Amino acid sequence: MPELRKDYVTDTWVVFAPDRAQRPIETQGTVSLATAPEECPFCPGHEHMTPPEVLAYPSNASDGSAWRVRCVPNRFPALTPDGEVRAKSDGLFHSLEGVGVHEIIVETPDHTKDFSALAKGQIQEVLRAYAARTADLAQDPRLAYILIFKNHGAEAGASLFHAHSQLIATPMVPRRIKDELRGAEAFRAENGACAYDRILQAELDASARIVLANEDFVVLCPFASRFPFEVWVLPRTHRVHFDSISTRERRALAGLLKDTLGRLNTLFRNPAFNWYIHTAPSDGGDYAHYHWHLELTPRLSKRAGFERGTGFYINSVPPEDAAHLLRQAGEA
Amino acid sequence: MPELRKDYVTDTWVVFAPDRAQRPIETQGTVSLATAPEECPFCPGHEHMTPPEVLAYPSNASDGSAWRVRCVPNRFPALTPDGEVRAKSDGLFHSLEGVGVHEIIVETPDHTKDFSALAKGQIQEVLRAYAARTADLAQDPRLAYILIFKNHGAEAGASLFHAHSQLIATPMVPRRIKDELRGAEAFRAENGACAYDRILQAELDASARIVLANEDFVVLCPFASRFPFEVWVLPRTHRVHFDSISTRERRALAGLLKDTLGRLNTLFRNPAFNWYIHTAPSDGGDYAHYHWHLELTPRLSKRAGFERGTGFYINSVPPEDAAHLLRQAGEA
Repeated sequence: MPELRKDYVTDTWVVFAPDRAQRPIETQGTVSLATAPEECPFCPGHEHMTPPEVLAYPSNASDGSAWRVRCVPNRFPALTPDGEVRAKSDGLFHSLEGVGVHEIIVETPDHTKDFSALAKGQIQEVLRAYAARTADLAQDPRLAYILIFKNHGAEAGASLFHAHSQLIATPMVPRRIKDELRGAEAFRAENGACAYDRILQAELDASARIVLANEDFVVLCPFASRFPFEVWVLPRTHRVHFDSISTRERRALAGLLKDTLGRLNTLFRNPAFNWYIHTAPSDGGDYAHYHWHLELTPRLSKRAGFERGTGFYINSVPPEDAAHLLRQAGEA
Repeated sequence: MPELRKDYVTDTWVVFAPDRAQRPIETQGTVSLATAPEECPFCPGHEHMTPPEVLAYPSNASDGSAWRVRCVPNRFPALTPDGEVRAKSDGLFHSLEGVGVHEIIVETPDHTKDFSALAKGQIQEVLRAYAARTADLAQDPRLAYILIFKNHGAEAGASLFHAHSQLIATPMVPRRIKDELRGAEAFRAENGACAYDRILQAELDASARIVLANEDFVVLCPFASRFPFEVWVLPRTHRVHFDSISTRERRALAGLLKDTLGRLNTLFRNPAFNWYIHTAPSDGGDYAHYHWHLELTPRLSKRAGFERGTGFYINSVPPEDAAHLLRQAGEA
């Protein structure tokens, strides 16, 4: 059973998952394909290599695969779904049993295609699976938070090549979300408005950091980008929870994600990246002041001792320059 | 002039230092030596390749070098020492001019020796330089915090091979320090004692996470280690500021650092690592409840999307196992 431990004095939590040391690591370098499809646990026909699926969308294509998108529990989970969330406290030592959920969303039956190469319709199905799994797990009273994320490339922490995203649900609200909730709450108390609605408006007015936009979403490089070419995708409609995304928004988001990744590929030739969806907690609290969004951070630089030691970030690319280059990359 | 920007809603600060993109990056892979000593800006005889020194300890050896330890301003500073700390605030956009200090501590005149290969007496001189630069810059009323840190190996963010540490002084207290100060303050309010004194006592009682100790310092793998083989060095004497370190403590710390790095080298063959010294702010506040310490984090794993998205950490090596292996490595 994994264990969650809290730092002696700060609100920093660590998941201890010793079994994960046994998982296969097949990628090397920036992005490379190491396994043959015959050995890939995410390929059609290899469904027995994963735990039984929790969701699958049937294929309507004639390519022989039974499914288009498939969600399965992670074989090497950081957290496990059995048992109750029991806390242990002994003076300075605070821990929880590592109850939670860790799932894989296989984004396509095609071993060779990465996310940016998927058809828009396929990306919409992936987003539909994200929302469906989130809505389902939000019913579990043991889970306080559900994070959907993607590691693309070994540099970004991916260990298998076949295109997939992940979901980790935790028994407490993570600190970065707490920070955003606290900031958004303070902003609303002071201004009577959603901070993210105002960010959208202020950034559209300023325009220098906007990458692209459609009727439903805006893609921008945030004012205090922590990483070179960090990109946020903000829905124009104020929605608290990601899983309330509409069909039309799924279509709009699929197009913008594909377009944005295409621009990053033009500039950097398939860079490693992470993205994650920040949504409100699923612990039943009132988060009307929150506004879900997606954050994408390419892996173009390294965090060194100063960043680790302070929580500061050093970024050598101003977001105005990054947004300018990303806009230009779309004109090619 | 670099610029500091605050995230729209959270207390996350980013240093924008576009000039740093021009700095030479000579290391590749885990740790490798790319430059010939003839081209190294930190080698004796090449003092003209760096800005004028701010501190140098003269050599008493007959190896021909004029100095044993040398501190110089960074040629590609993240922050610059000129001007006043001026804040700009415009709705959701908060920034500061990037006033601060960024220095290099060249740890030895010998191009070929890494920190762990230095003589104990030489390491003592490096620690003396750390304390001297910290005490000097603490007088500057524009600076709120002084961080000493070390990046060893390209994986840890080092860009030059010749052994060196760095100092960055910032106009505000960084969030990780704020978190520790807040936690330590809450602990003292509740328990009437220094949290770090109690951590020391509790960890010595538990013993499973202790790596080694002498009369002045304890080396341990912390209960909620964020990274595999994370190591903390805690002074037994309650001292708020690092620069109050005594001569005897410098000697004791030099020995323990060399010993700890030797053990990591035995286990992992010269792993990349960062360390940083957490000390109280130099902004004139009352931090009697704080207790300086050094944190060392080897670069054995990657932070992926879940960690980036949440602020959680996933660690596959429990600190009890890491401490056990580090204790054994000393018996070789």
